[in-house]
Amino acid sequence: MTITRQPTHLPVHQPTEQATAAAQLLGLLARDLAADRLTTDPAATAAYATDRSGAHPDGQPLAVVHAAHTDDVRTTLRHANALRVPVVPRGAGTGLSGGATAAEGTVVLDLARMNRITEISPDDQLAVVEPGVITADLDRAAAAYGLRYAPDPASAAISTIGGNIATNAGGLRCAKYGVTRDSVLGLDAVLADGTLIRTGRRTVKGVAGYDLTALLTGSEGTLGVITAATLRLRPVPVATATIAAYFRTFEDAAAGASALTAARIEPAMAELLDGPVLAAIDEARATEARGTEARGTQAPSVHAPGAHAPGTELRARGGALLLVQCDGAGAAAEAERVAALLTPRATSVETTDDPAEAESLLAARRLALPALERLGRPLIEDIAVPRSQLARAVREIGAISARHGVPVYTLAHAADGNLHPILVIDPALTEVPPAAWAAASDIFALALRLGGTLTGEHGVGTLKRQWLADELGEDSLALHHRLKAAFDPYGILNPGKAI
Amino acid sequence: MTITRQPTHLPVHQPTEQATAAAQLLGLLARDLAADRLTTDPAATAAYATDRSGAHPDGQPLAVVHAAHTDDVRTTLRHANALRVPVVPRGAGTGLSGGATAAEGTVVLDLARMNRITEISPDDQLAVVEPGVITADLDRAAAAYGLRYAPDPASAAISTIGGNIATNAGGLRCAKYGVTRDSVLGLDAVLADGTLIRTGRRTVKGVAGYDLTALLTGSEGTLGVITAATLRLRPVPVATATIAAYFRTFEDAAAGASALTAARIEPAMAELLDGPVLAAIDEARATEARGTEARGTQAPSVHAPGAHAPGTELRARGGALLLVQCDGAGAAAEAERVAALLTPRATSVETTDDPAEAESLLAARRLALPALERLGRPLIEDIAVPRSQLARAVREIGAISARHGVPVYTLAHAADGNLHPILVIDPALTEVPPAAWAAASDIFALALRLGGTLTGEHGVGTLKRQWLADELGEDSLALHHRLKAAFDPYGILNPGKAI
Repeated sequence: MTITRQPTHLPVHQPTEQATAAAQLLGLLARDLAADRLTTDPAATAAYATDRSGAHPDGQPLAVVHAAHTDDVRTTLRHANALRVPVVPRGAGTGLSGGATAAEGTVVLDLARMNRITEISPDDQLAVVEPGVITADLDRAAAAYGLRYAPDPASAAISTIGGNIATNAGGLRCAKYGVTRDSVLGLDAVLADGTLIRTGRRTVKGVAGYDLTALLTGSEGTLGVITAATLRLRPVPVATATIAAYFRTFEDAAAGASALTAARIEPAMAELLDGPVLAAIDEARATEARGTEARGTQAPSVHAPGAHAPGTELRARGGALLLVQCDGAGAAAEAERVAALLTPRATSVETTDDPAEAESLLAARRLALPALERLGRPLIEDIAVPRSQLARAVREIGAISARHGVPVYTLAHAADGNLHPILVIDPALTEVPPAAWAAASDIFALALRLGGTLTGEHGVGTLKRQWLADELGEDSLALHHRLKAAFDPYGILNPGKAI
Repeated sequence: MTITRQPTHLPVHQPTEQATAAAQLLGLLARDLAADRLTTDPAATAAYATDRSGAHPDGQPLAVVHAAHTDDVRTTLRHANALRVPVVPRGAGTGLSGGATAAEGTVVLDLARMNRITEISPDDQLAVVEPGVITADLDRAAAAYGLRYAPDPASAAISTIGGNIATNAGGLRCAKYGVTRDSVLGLDAVLADGTLIRTGRRTVKGVAGYDLTALLTGSEGTLGVITAATLRLRPVPVATATIAAYFRTFEDAAAGASALTAARIEPAMAELLDGPVLAAIDEARATEARGTEARGTQAPSVHAPGAHAPGTELRARGGALLLVQCDGAGAAAEAERVAALLTPRATSVETTDDPAEAESLLAARRLALPALERLGRPLIEDIAVPRSQLARAVREIGAISARHGVPVYTLAHAADGNLHPILVIDPALTEVPPAAWAAASDIFALALRLGGTLTGEHGVGTLKRQWLADELGEDSLALHHRLKAAFDPYGILNPGKAI
């Protein structure tokens, strides 16, 4: 099996009809869009074929539209819909499930230039933004008013709000503050035929009409193209306390996280990193410090708790790290309870209310994915399990790793039960090795068996589509397709993705 | 204009065909359901024609099915769909927008008997319940595990979880804990043709498939019938502090609430009550204390700040009451900030961490609607405005009241910008007086003008349908109808409601 050739499910065209439609569309786009909006040079469009998932579809897109205004989006979709040419909406291309991959015959609708923060209202605690705004930029702009954009995907510095909404991105702080959907009050979205609709509102509550805002959030560009979002901002907490607890084994750390849930503590963040991830981060930091850019394919030995040699800094302190953050007026009191609960289980527990020290610990966490990318091509799984099943999931992932002889690096948003078991593939290989594929398949089956889901926050994209019916069931999947048709009757919006 | 005769938009049948279909359906239901499930006695079905909104449709339903199991729901819908007979799902009938009213020719699908709490998982912090569970019963059952069901509609003691989900009910605590949708992890729902689908999951995060859970939540029984819900439970806060602040005028109180938002405080609750509401509560309490059951139509004089004579207890303490609750580890510190901010604006501010005292203040708030029902038939509006517009909305509602000579009583969930201006109608009238209708219309227009919504938490039902297109726009409304058709192609589910 290979992930380099995904089924694309493009609208049905005979090859000659398809070529004619494509040529007609390019003519209309050249006529109706400003000259700087359209790229058809194959050398330039090739870069838009893939995204950070590393998945490669067949061929490459026939054009890229760099939309600068909503009207560019409407024009592009109106013509593409009339000619039945598939369109792939794209933010920064940082998605990890292949949702922005663009195959032969598609037009990429790039929203990166629509990156204006239109409004920040401190009184209503909301922002109105275009989809191409970088998530961290919005958070920074809000900070000037004592506010923040609560969702905090690990990719915040490079991903866009539009992409976050398309995947209903989670992140580090969503244990307490919810996922992207919980911060989206309303959307402007262009439907497949170019119709602009407005969903939701500027108020924190509202039940007039169906919840189209939630339906569009997480729909991975298959229902409409978001051209503006009204987002909830929240006060920056008055205090924050961060606890770093190291454990002998990853299972001990997972049990520690479960102990917090059992004690009814609701931290703002609870990030788990296993030993191999800590070692990779250490290695990346050391290399950075040396100023080199070496990339390699050094995978760790097969994951087995405690089986790794001690590394530098982080890794040397234990076989796993649990980072907990408490915030708000009760932060110090909560952190004290967290430390008391973790101390009997951990090898060391440190608490800090110093923002710089906390930021340095979080920076290590945020470095995890780039650190693994140094080792090869990461296949990042994204299962979520009921919170009580976290330690069991960790244990069984270890067994899957051992059974298939495939090293697995694991991160988790522990308070959410959201695990990222990461398989790192030799980048020289054009196909995913069968053992890795089998391990991934076992991980998905495990998630479903434990009452969980295939994807907690990254989306289905192309990479998880083949397992989707197992989770949703055939009747629900049929309903999904009827809903898709209500938005996009000719199936031009991001075909072959998400459902 | 009258609200006693709503357009019902029933599926198209000629009268004779309709009678034949009805007779056939009753025969099939009598054949396929247990005998205690079906009521066709007109004396008994008449009670199911209306709900707490007081709206009366034409005629009365032809039958009531008292479903005890999911299979009863499936059987009823399968037959009704085949015969194109409209079905009105019903919980406790406590809705305030007419969503459960059942006109001539409909079958009421009563879910009150499906009232089992199937599971409470303290480890996963969730409950699985049937739709007929009374909301307060779930909260009580969760309390045995140190948990609670966070949404807290004022009707919690009498409304059902299924009804709460159907309207995406808000409530007192949703300033901090969100509305019903934020606590629904997954649903079992039966589609119009009897197909059972399962949405969502047992995990707190998950993005596989479209967000059908959110789409069903708030859809007022028009997309499917909920037969089970997996609900998030949250820890009971370690501490709670309650502040009761009295103000000279309602506008002062609204400005006080806005000052809390501006100071970046996020209370768990911020309830506003105006002077006429306080007087009605006092009167109801005094009457209760006297053990009488007198009902009258004594409306207050036209609402104008400070214009009312002093009443008993609550009313005597000021022209408006703002009840604020802070909870969690930082409750005391937050309450101190709240008191400091309100003191310069208020006539008196009291803080208590005594649960009994807090409960007595909240009990007064919960008595508001029953107290107004003693005075006549309340028409409860439910607008929400951006939080910065709260004081302005209060001022303009006062002007609308004066302009039309219609007394308006107002409650508000202040931290959400959700206002309930209540018009009390003489129950002897069969039609709403034109002045009241005109005032309501102006209140809706005000909400939209301030960037708000027609309904924050009660739903559209039948009573707000005529204004819906003003809020959603024609293109969005057309999309709503396409979505409706994807779930319910023959339009049998609660026709004439919500959209």
